[in-house]
Amino acid sequence: MNKVVASIITIGDELLIGQVIDTNSAWMAQELNKYGIWVAHRVAVGDVWEDIWQALDEESRRSSIILITGGLGPTADDITKPLLNKYFGGKMIVDQKALDNVRWIFERVLKRPMIDRNLRQAEVPDSCTVIQNKRGTAPGMWFEREGRIFVSMPGVPHEMKGMMADDILPTLRERFQLPYIAHRTLLTAGIGESFLAEHIKTFEEALPASIKLAYLPNYGMVRLRLTIRAEAPRIPAEAAAGSAISDAATQTPVTEAETLIQQQFDTLRGLVTEWMVTDEDISLQEAIGRLLKTHGKTLGTAESCTGGYIAHLITSIPGSSHYYKGSVVSYANEVKTHCLGVSPDTLAAHGAVSEETVREMVRGALAGLDTDYAIATSGIMGPDGGTPDKPVGMVWIAVGNRQNILAQKFSFRFDRLRNIELTATNALNQLRKFILSTPQ
Amino acid sequence: MNKVVASIITIGDELLIGQVIDTNSAWMAQELNKYGIWVAHRVAVGDVWEDIWQALDEESRRSSIILITGGLGPTADDITKPLLNKYFGGKMIVDQKALDNVRWIFERVLKRPMIDRNLRQAEVPDSCTVIQNKRGTAPGMWFEREGRIFVSMPGVPHEMKGMMADDILPTLRERFQLPYIAHRTLLTAGIGESFLAEHIKTFEEALPASIKLAYLPNYGMVRLRLTIRAEAPRIPAEAAAGSAISDAATQTPVTEAETLIQQQFDTLRGLVTEWMVTDEDISLQEAIGRLLKTHGKTLGTAESCTGGYIAHLITSIPGSSHYYKGSVVSYANEVKTHCLGVSPDTLAAHGAVSEETVREMVRGALAGLDTDYAIATSGIMGPDGGTPDKPVGMVWIAVGNRQNILAQKFSFRFDRLRNIELTATNALNQLRKFILSTPQ
Repeated sequence: MNKVVASIITIGDELLIGQVIDTNSAWMAQELNKYGIWVAHRVAVGDVWEDIWQALDEESRRSSIILITGGLGPTADDITKPLLNKYFGGKMIVDQKALDNVRWIFERVLKRPMIDRNLRQAEVPDSCTVIQNKRGTAPGMWFEREGRIFVSMPGVPHEMKGMMADDILPTLRERFQLPYIAHRTLLTAGIGESFLAEHIKTFEEALPASIKLAYLPNYGMVRLRLTIRAEAPRIPAEAAAGSAISDAATQTPVTEAETLIQQQFDTLRGLVTEWMVTDEDISLQEAIGRLLKTHGKTLGTAESCTGGYIAHLITSIPGSSHYYKGSVVSYANEVKTHCLGVSPDTLAAHGAVSEETVREMVRGALAGLDTDYAIATSGIMGPDGGTPDKPVGMVWIAVGNRQNILAQKFSFRFDRLRNIELTATNALNQLRKFILSTPQ
Repeated sequence: MNKVVASIITIGDELLIGQVIDTNSAWMAQELNKYGIWVAHRVAVGDVWEDIWQALDEESRRSSIILITGGLGPTADDITKPLLNKYFGGKMIVDQKALDNVRWIFERVLKRPMIDRNLRQAEVPDSCTVIQNKRGTAPGMWFEREGRIFVSMPGVPHEMKGMMADDILPTLRERFQLPYIAHRTLLTAGIGESFLAEHIKTFEEALPASIKLAYLPNYGMVRLRLTIRAEAPRIPAEAAAGSAISDAATQTPVTEAETLIQQQFDTLRGLVTEWMVTDEDISLQEAIGRLLKTHGKTLGTAESCTGGYIAHLITSIPGSSHYYKGSVVSYANEVKTHCLGVSPDTLAAHGAVSEETVREMVRGALAGLDTDYAIATSGIMGPDGGTPDKPVGMVWIAVGNRQNILAQKFSFRFDRLRNIELTATNALNQLRKFILSTPQ
């Protein structure tokens, strides 16, 4: 069985001048990987006829599946559709279903009159199979030539994702006999990448050839990922269930590859237990959410320097309202006093960025938000506001419950946003350790 | 003068399996554009010897400048350095400055003992010019062959950015006679992309050939960008000053291109005044920050469904502590009552997602945080929690001051994160309009 290889082409000047960050490619790659389709190449080109044409030529020499996003909007800088019409030869026709969809969106969702330009969204090359867009006006287009599949989708993330999930991925799975690919991921904190590598060197060197280990450092944490690729095709039902656990539960045969990667992952997990945050491919805030749910406890936050970012991370997880009660973002000192009960004397004597203040903030959050646990942060995120005593990047973090509060000082040395992110990560990890060390 | 064209190659399996979103390329493209270097192609390849080699071959046929990031870490999956050593022919040598830097980072910054693996970070091919890394252990490498420049940098964003700003961009500016490129951007809200296009159709059709118009829709807003590209080289001092205004102020000659794009931009601005949020390339939260500073007013937020995201957007702007006092993130109803004074009767009669509740939240934030303006949000972000009466995506937003409160209902139909983002954007824009309509 041959390896099924895909390329992703993203189209748009906004990607090449850097006005927009491409998040679509990462999502598409994740989804394709789940089904054993390997993305070998990702390329971004501008709204330039020759460049798009050349990218189509090059990627079709490289891959059997070419996924294209962008350039399908109703404005003059969007040239993907006429280009594909010319590339695959044919003429433009109106697709009735797409036209009904555009009408429906304007009448029912947008409640605005439609203009000629919108109607043209329903025109497609007669050389393609139309993929209906349930979330927007631009239809997707599926072309085939010389055994290659080309799919053009809108660049709007939720429209692209819906089309991929509803139509494109299911069809690709039917069309190709796909290999088995699996990832096992764990997240560590508190150890640098090179020390981790040294620590698991013998393990890494002894890994079978079919398994690859990757180090993914981010926000002061390192994610370790094992990937196995085997020729054994996966049974569709298994792929849909998507995990080794459910495979076992439903008694379907677990392939040799699954056993092998699980064994290696168990060994790896044993080696890094000390620093392990979670052995699933989830975020720190998700891991904390599970901990709190398991113990039936609640959390509140009192954020100065992180300015609501910790609250945002926690509340971005569905169902977080079951354990998260809220935050007092006390950017001004008077809010620290009025809403969290931090004593004006403490602020005068030690300043807002001090151990004493974050301890009082934790107490204020526990009482005011009425929670079992609380986190407090106060620091100088930059670029301004630093002093010789308290330079930019200096942060106090405290976590605690009604019995005990732990405070710790950190020094970060990055830009404002990264300092905020690192403070949030460290605060969440400190809370995680605190919960684990607390008798429940 | 020839157009100077660059390619960006990003290396790493994590980019191709979608575990990491590439933010580096966008930043690099923005910086290169400022200096008139056009990024024609961006490509992502995995940690695969042949794929990286092929990308180097292909991009060197296409561009004079090839910027490479990633694969320089201390672990076994990082193969960029040995590959470049082989590609450009030569042998590995220890760079003394890089070695001193690695030692310094371990002794002074990390305060950890160094291991052999870290020392090897100081080894470089003798065929390159070393670019010192002031923010990490992996040095950058500058190679030249047949008139092409290849620069390899670490993938860690702040290390790459530092190297670009300190060394690479200044050197590129010296080496190439660069064209003049300028962008003028304005942000609109409350009008769809196609209606905007229809509204400015005549303007767009009459644009001179040297100017391009792009539509960049995001979070329910549309950014319009004019780009001019002219052969006239920019005087270095002007480029450093970086804007038409400072050019005029310092009496340096303003080129024909600058006059031309400014005229067109003024026309465009006149056409879209009704929907214009800002005529600079800044975010909505930055525009609001400027408004508040100008009027000497303060802001507080009371966030339920946005869970701190509005506070995070506002506090990500340096200097926001001058006008932003804080937020009560009232995820739980008892926090709405206890910290914001929302009446339990209101919650019982109308529910948390209601006009009455968000109005009381605004009043509670104005009083409790003692601010001139306040924003409140309450809604159902999904995927769970919807009811027939109050489906997922239903949101109430209120903005106001002590004299007046305006509340509005919205219905979003996306996933949780996008619903949060859209609520935040709409709340901020509602506040912006409220401030503008308030006699100061």
